[in-house]
Amino acid sequence: MLSKNLTKYLHSLQLKKFRLEHNAFLVEGAKSVLELLTADFQTELVVVTEQFYKENTQKLEKQPFRLEIATADELARAGTLQTNDAALAVVKTKDNDFLYAEKGEYVLILDDIRDPGNLGTIIRIADWYGITKIVCSQTTTDWYNPKVIAASKGSFTRVRGYYAELTAYLEKVRNMEHGTQIYGTFLEGKNIHQTTFGDTGYIVMGNESNGIGPTVEQFVIHKITIPRFGGAESLNVGIAAAVVLDNWRRG
Amino acid sequence: MLSKNLTKYLHSLQLKKFRLEHNAFLVEGAKSVLELLTADFQTELVVVTEQFYKENTQKLEKQPFRLEIATADELARAGTLQTNDAALAVVKTKDNDFLYAEKGEYVLILDDIRDPGNLGTIIRIADWYGITKIVCSQTTTDWYNPKVIAASKGSFTRVRGYYAELTAYLEKVRNMEHGTQIYGTFLEGKNIHQTTFGDTGYIVMGNESNGIGPTVEQFVIHKITIPRFGGAESLNVGIAAAVVLDNWRRG
Repeated sequence: MLSKNLTKYLHSLQLKKFRLEHNAFLVEGAKSVLELLTADFQTELVVVTEQFYKENTQKLEKQPFRLEIATADELARAGTLQTNDAALAVVKTKDNDFLYAEKGEYVLILDDIRDPGNLGTIIRIADWYGITKIVCSQTTTDWYNPKVIAASKGSFTRVRGYYAELTAYLEKVRNMEHGTQIYGTFLEGKNIHQTTFGDTGYIVMGNESNGIGPTVEQFVIHKITIPRFGGAESLNVGIAAAVVLDNWRRG
Repeated sequence: MLSKNLTKYLHSLQLKKFRLEHNAFLVEGAKSVLELLTADFQTELVVVTEQFYKENTQKLEKQPFRLEIATADELARAGTLQTNDAALAVVKTKDNDFLYAEKGEYVLILDDIRDPGNLGTIIRIADWYGITKIVCSQTTTDWYNPKVIAASKGSFTRVRGYYAELTAYLEKVRNMEHGTQIYGTFLEGKNIHQTTFGDTGYIVMGNESNGIGPTVEQFVIHKITIPRFGGAESLNVGIAAAVVLDNWRRG
């Protein structure tokens, strides 16, 4: 059974304020927790159902974290998932280390992505396309929000995030010696089907309603657009990120 | 003020049973309702806030539907949207007319898409890429579910849906005289970046967890795959549909 104190602690981590205070976040769901166990994270606590424990004893034993057994109901009440699931973990957040595109690499930059579901989806897509670094504006939703972690479907274990004031950040990286191409999606840009991507670079995706802001826009060297063939006004930012990364990988 | 009976009627349309009984569905939100007013649909009733009425009087007057004014609160209570919005409509469903790919055209086929948000997103993406016909398996979630209509962001006015038993449907269309290419996404298929798409065809997307079922698989001539470069296990079906259609349009 989960103690009152523990349940209270788990609840508190739904709020950014307490995640910052404890330098910890929630990972919910059997699949995400299993991915976590093989990843390079400092796990503090794992709560699982008896069934999950029986099926994964080997993976759970001999690990340095505290392990608790709870019922599916207790787990559901402790976490944010609406459906019962079999596992939940409390994990130490990573330091906000500076990230940049090394030679031959691409980094995704997010300018003011507000929706946690969108950020999580973008992390998953970045992971699919082999991008391991995402730089977020300080107005972008919190990477460690349980909805972001859930929507990333385990990809949060393979993709790193770095929050920065984007103007200062772009100022710094655009003069790197190996040369840097900065791409950004706009309604009026070059058709992405005719775009060739340089060796090393950054791809900027903008806010759900307003796109890339004017201060960040000044740093974008290549304005690109996903061509439209029908009547829809726009694409969701996660969808757009996937299409852009697919075109980038296609070369 | 909305009468009790009217509120009850609006509520009932959240359920498929009553949508079928009344041959009607809900369109919620100012933006969707405005798109509806210029589209080819038989609108039965429009409920708007006074503010919305003032701003759109011309568009709302002289139309053959019943018009009601309500408060934002009443609208929120009558509909399914969690946030208040300014307009809601009741619209007659279209007949389930047979759809197929005419010469030079592509049709999207959905095999067992269960999530309304996914179906709505796919309708929006199809619309962006100029696809106007979607054929759904009978197990696919209801096109007229308010969540589908909302997620389509007005694209439901430009894209038609047709529900069919897919085996019989594919049996019928694969022998059409103008020749038909049937493409389907699988984990182990030909790299979509190296795929060329024929002049006329069908693209099948499968269920969120299980992909395309074995009976439908038999009809797929070209098995295609979105290449993966990183660690994520899968892509959401809406994301996958966008990437496939972008590759198709790229030629």
